[in-house]
Amino acid sequence: MIASTHHTALADLIGAENVLVEAGDRAGYETGARYDRGEAALVLRPRDTEQVSLAVAYCVRNGIAIVPQSGNTGVVSGSTPDASGDQVVLSLDRLTKTFALDVENRSLHVDAGFRLSDINGRLEEHGLQFPIDLGADPGIGGMLSTNTGGSRFLKFGDVRRNVLGIKVVLADEHGTVLDLLSGLRKNNTGVDWKQVFIGTSGAFGIITECEINLEALPRQIATALLVPRDGKAVMPLLAAMERRLGGYLSAFEGMSRNAVEATLAHVPSLRNPFQNGVVPDYVILTEVSRDWDLREGEQALDAVLESVLAEIWELDGAPLLDAFVGPAQEMWALRHALSEGVKHRGRLVGFDLSFRRQDVIAFCDWMKDALPAKFPGVLICDFGHIGDGGVHFNLVFDRGAHHDAEVETALREWVYAVAVEQFGGSFSAEHGIGRKNQMFYDLYTDATRRTLADGLKAITSPAQLGAVRFGSA
Amino acid sequence: MIASTHHTALADLIGAENVLVEAGDRAGYETGARYDRGEAALVLRPRDTEQVSLAVAYCVRNGIAIVPQSGNTGVVSGSTPDASGDQVVLSLDRLTKTFALDVENRSLHVDAGFRLSDINGRLEEHGLQFPIDLGADPGIGGMLSTNTGGSRFLKFGDVRRNVLGIKVVLADEHGTVLDLLSGLRKNNTGVDWKQVFIGTSGAFGIITECEINLEALPRQIATALLVPRDGKAVMPLLAAMERRLGGYLSAFEGMSRNAVEATLAHVPSLRNPFQNGVVPDYVILTEVSRDWDLREGEQALDAVLESVLAEIWELDGAPLLDAFVGPAQEMWALRHALSEGVKHRGRLVGFDLSFRRQDVIAFCDWMKDALPAKFPGVLICDFGHIGDGGVHFNLVFDRGAHHDAEVETALREWVYAVAVEQFGGSFSAEHGIGRKNQMFYDLYTDATRRTLADGLKAITSPAQLGAVRFGSA
Repeated sequence: MIASTHHTALADLIGAENVLVEAGDRAGYETGARYDRGEAALVLRPRDTEQVSLAVAYCVRNGIAIVPQSGNTGVVSGSTPDASGDQVVLSLDRLTKTFALDVENRSLHVDAGFRLSDINGRLEEHGLQFPIDLGADPGIGGMLSTNTGGSRFLKFGDVRRNVLGIKVVLADEHGTVLDLLSGLRKNNTGVDWKQVFIGTSGAFGIITECEINLEALPRQIATALLVPRDGKAVMPLLAAMERRLGGYLSAFEGMSRNAVEATLAHVPSLRNPFQNGVVPDYVILTEVSRDWDLREGEQALDAVLESVLAEIWELDGAPLLDAFVGPAQEMWALRHALSEGVKHRGRLVGFDLSFRRQDVIAFCDWMKDALPAKFPGVLICDFGHIGDGGVHFNLVFDRGAHHDAEVETALREWVYAVAVEQFGGSFSAEHGIGRKNQMFYDLYTDATRRTLADGLKAITSPAQLGAVRFGSA
Repeated sequence: MIASTHHTALADLIGAENVLVEAGDRAGYETGARYDRGEAALVLRPRDTEQVSLAVAYCVRNGIAIVPQSGNTGVVSGSTPDASGDQVVLSLDRLTKTFALDVENRSLHVDAGFRLSDINGRLEEHGLQFPIDLGADPGIGGMLSTNTGGSRFLKFGDVRRNVLGIKVVLADEHGTVLDLLSGLRKNNTGVDWKQVFIGTSGAFGIITECEINLEALPRQIATALLVPRDGKAVMPLLAAMERRLGGYLSAFEGMSRNAVEATLAHVPSLRNPFQNGVVPDYVILTEVSRDWDLREGEQALDAVLESVLAEIWELDGAPLLDAFVGPAQEMWALRHALSEGVKHRGRLVGFDLSFRRQDVIAFCDWMKDALPAKFPGVLICDFGHIGDGGVHFNLVFDRGAHHDAEVETALREWVYAVAVEQFGGSFSAEHGIGRKNQMFYDLYTDATRRTLADGLKAITSPAQLGAVRFGSA
């Protein structure tokens, strides 16, 4: 709890309507998308960078901890307050004034409060997009703070690759505004400071505005579901596709049978696309796309994909068991529903891992062998991004399996240890760090980097900011 | 000069053959590619990260300033010693042991001493490349330290986009080795520290190893020279090309008549490709490429490019005066010779600028109007990367034009002021910061960022390192 004099003072600074005090008003800002429920002392909803700066300066001077929050769709408790009731949530959801499109530069200056769907909805008429494809609909500020990746990383990369400039408010006594806005693609004039704030959960500063790179919307899309012969056939399949389709290839997503079955069961409107309804052990959703209209004399993209698959079908080792080209929307609907689908299969313990590309399947296969003996009744419902090495390694306690907090903790620690220590993987590929995986950050980050983070914290935002701690203290 | 006891001590640490003392041996390490000649106290040529660490620790403990040097092909005096004779050059040219290719992951772990041409030469048989296209042949360590861009940025981005991990030696008393090596594409587990060392000229640490992203080599290429109606037609041309060719478009490079004429005069082996040998005011070299072999039923890329140009020819406003599809090698030979060509036209004052894409031509046009009155006899020999907003804005004092150091300084200051203050551009798009443009860094970097750089310096490499200074002191 914080003193009510602070309510009044903050209301004077940014307007009473921008300070939420009542429990009912605060509730929506206190719960994470997947984990946790905390309690906020207050929720602040400033309208622009200047108000963010005023609010931050006030909080810092009065020793009030701030948790910045964007769309609050993250799954690692990176944007929700803890249970103390002492933290103030600073929501960015009203930062929705600036939307300045520069078509010739293919870039957009936008306030942090816009949702991805808003941005791409408005860009559609210009044939442009912010090319990050996610199941969720986060705010753009949060997307920068977590450096989201998504399903088309293979073609477009992550958020980091698509940011030209940002404006940041630092948690110091002045609420210093660091103006790193830029519409430039090439600019090597010293430290690229924006990189420090991208992907660090708001711990070093609050991103309030950004200028982002835009890409052309795809104008031709073809998708297919591929059934690999077995796990060992997946990388040869990817290689064969990359060799024949190169820059056309915009997605190569793996889906396990367990994940697909859970999703088909949970979302009855999804059509089961498999022969006789039998879901194969592992399926790959692949997409090829071109960002121009079909030209005269050019083969339709469906036909290109079909002929490529026919070639791959004939390859030595027969990596392909089955394949069918089908409607993109239907196939992506299945892919995008997986995250919700596995959540409803049972008690979910989710891991957002990444590896060298060839190790995604190697890791999953290793787990299929080792998990049942160690944690009986736990189902592997993995899906992910083979093309970039990411995998949402979801474990679900089947009905009847023994589950308690202790088992879950043991499971979590074991999986991370295998992923990081044995397979050289990342314990957070694209979800970032939040309270939920803080202990694994502490465990797997060497002392040198934690000390460096302490130093970085001291020079940027010395006051407490965000839900997590990257340093050593 | 430094005491000869240091020579002996360093020779004990890294081997006498790795310490160059004699003037004749040092000379090649003391001269920059375009500017300056300094004097080194010693040249150190360690063989691996451990030797770099030993040498750095020794120098730091003994107060000896180090200038790391890679291929030494930069043009801003970022890797050469000053005239004092007190600095030690630490050359990376013998760091050529590790070359570990991971084909499935499309990545390469490589020591900092390999040249770009070595790397791409070895990758060719695997159909892969490190996709940074430059006229020069730098070392990979230096490429990371300057974050080079080049002519195919439009498709592949800069070095920063293509680095997965690095190993760095910090300039502290221990020569601390910061191991940020990684083969992962998605990894959001805290501060992405490698970003601090990429593009900062070695001031915060010496990159000794890296793991880089590889892309498929192009298998089909078509190039054309386009003659736009005038400056105003350039952006509509780019838009028309992007709309019709999207991801095929791998270069869109502008070349001014002065630059082309100077180059044709300097390199007689280049064929003049223009009708009756008359070079147009402005020419665009455009390239489309596909990274797979021509498929049955697929139109050849030359034909695609020709039909696109035919469509553009018919557009309202007639943006195209002339266009001809021709041999890629010949056209790129001209493009890559421009840098040398303009150097031989007369006394060169080079600027490596960038803008929002539409402002490249706007800036050049503005300069064409304003320059002659202010600096008579100075020729604009610009060429650059319209597709990413970069321009090598080269000014040449024509024979007979008044030139002295004072005029050159005034010219330099005026051009930067117009570029940065009036057009919102960058004073160093892809060459980075060196002694040559240190004063413009000081002039155009706000106090907040310089103070932040002081702090960053203190926590990474507190000792003097590199040819430049990013902080305030």
